[in-house]
Amino acid sequence: MRDAFHDDLDKVSDDLVEMTTMVGAAMRRATTALLETDLTTAESVIAADDDIDALRREVDDRAVDLLARQQPVATDLRMVVTAMHMASDIERMGDLARHVAKAARRRYPDCAVPDQLRNTIREMAEVAEQLVTATGSAIANKDVHGAVEIESIDDRMDELHRKVFGELLDQSWEHGTEAAVDTTLISRYYERFGDHAVAVADRIVYLVTGRYGTQDEGLQR
Amino acid sequence: MRDAFHDDLDKVSDDLVEMTTMVGAAMRRATTALLETDLTTAESVIAADDDIDALRREVDDRAVDLLARQQPVATDLRMVVTAMHMASDIERMGDLARHVAKAARRRYPDCAVPDQLRNTIREMAEVAEQLVTATGSAIANKDVHGAVEIESIDDRMDELHRKVFGELLDQSWEHGTEAAVDTTLISRYYERFGDHAVAVADRIVYLVTGRYGTQDEGLQR
Repeated sequence: MRDAFHDDLDKVSDDLVEMTTMVGAAMRRATTALLETDLTTAESVIAADDDIDALRREVDDRAVDLLARQQPVATDLRMVVTAMHMASDIERMGDLARHVAKAARRRYPDCAVPDQLRNTIREMAEVAEQLVTATGSAIANKDVHGAVEIESIDDRMDELHRKVFGELLDQSWEHGTEAAVDTTLISRYYERFGDHAVAVADRIVYLVTGRYGTQDEGLQR
Repeated sequence: MRDAFHDDLDKVSDDLVEMTTMVGAAMRRATTALLETDLTTAESVIAADDDIDALRREVDDRAVDLLARQQPVATDLRMVVTAMHMASDIERMGDLARHVAKAARRRYPDCAVPDQLRNTIREMAEVAEQLVTATGSAIANKDVHGAVEIESIDDRMDELHRKVFGELLDQSWEHGTEAAVDTTLISRYYERFGDHAVAVADRIVYLVTGRYGTQDEGLQR
């Protein structure tokens, strides 16, 4: 019966890794839509978010089914519960990618991000990519060190987010209010994407060590 | 054994209602801190978020304990799982109140929201209050009609959020970039607060009817 349990749990884990792959693709494509003013890609990302939501529901259903059939206790139980929490965070990462795509769509054919900040946003997207890859890997390998690494990759995301704000609020900002408002929200979407990756990482750490990870909150707006 | 299960589940439900009371107080006080430039209240809200997080962990621990000891199936199992999801949404509402308080603190002794938009933000806070009261009540009474009502109260929040953006992006905006950036984020915090209340409501509807609620996404940025 334990083998059946662990087989089922492996399927849940595979689904979670699949979700990270999907949100990674979503954010990568949303960034393309944004920085290359690509409406078709924006629409595609927006539509594909339904698939991420569907996979999250599948994870939940598998988890509930596992609880009902196998009635796990102790660490096994915590793994199932943790999987549900992770699915929730990863789904939210997908939503944030969709928000980036919507911002791109809203301003099409203009770019929602002024030239001045495109490289910074591009770098935030690269950090997002690293975070998602690391998250998928940490889940697949139940890897605490990988999980801790995610928290320090996210420090770079917070730095970039601060950099965006530094430029927006500088006296030399000449792109007007609309661009400032759009860029504020877009930067926040990437930053929150990172926060959710850290939340997943914290849960891996908790699963393996019993200790609650602490998120670096000091820099969040 | 079923009586013990339902007693335990009632405690979880009571904790969830307590959480809604706490996040309601947090958002009410954060709004005071914001609109009345009250630094002490801002600091107090920021600190008190730890209590909300602690109660969320207690809900999770109770739920896991319930699953381990009572090994519920079917609807009983779904109730426990749903409670964990709700705790997650309600905790996030507390975080959003903390973000409002941090915005107030960041700009002290100035007000982060220009005169022009203070009434609109005040009304968003009133809608937030209604949402939280309705959410606590819907949880306590397992009330589908109350839950559906929450979705329509949130329509008003979305309207107000659009109104804020309409003013920010109007040619007549004369308060500069910093105020626009701050107000963008603050308005989003209230709007996301509403979204999470709707997420809780959707779960109540799902619990009682088996149908997934649909969030009105069309107006989200």
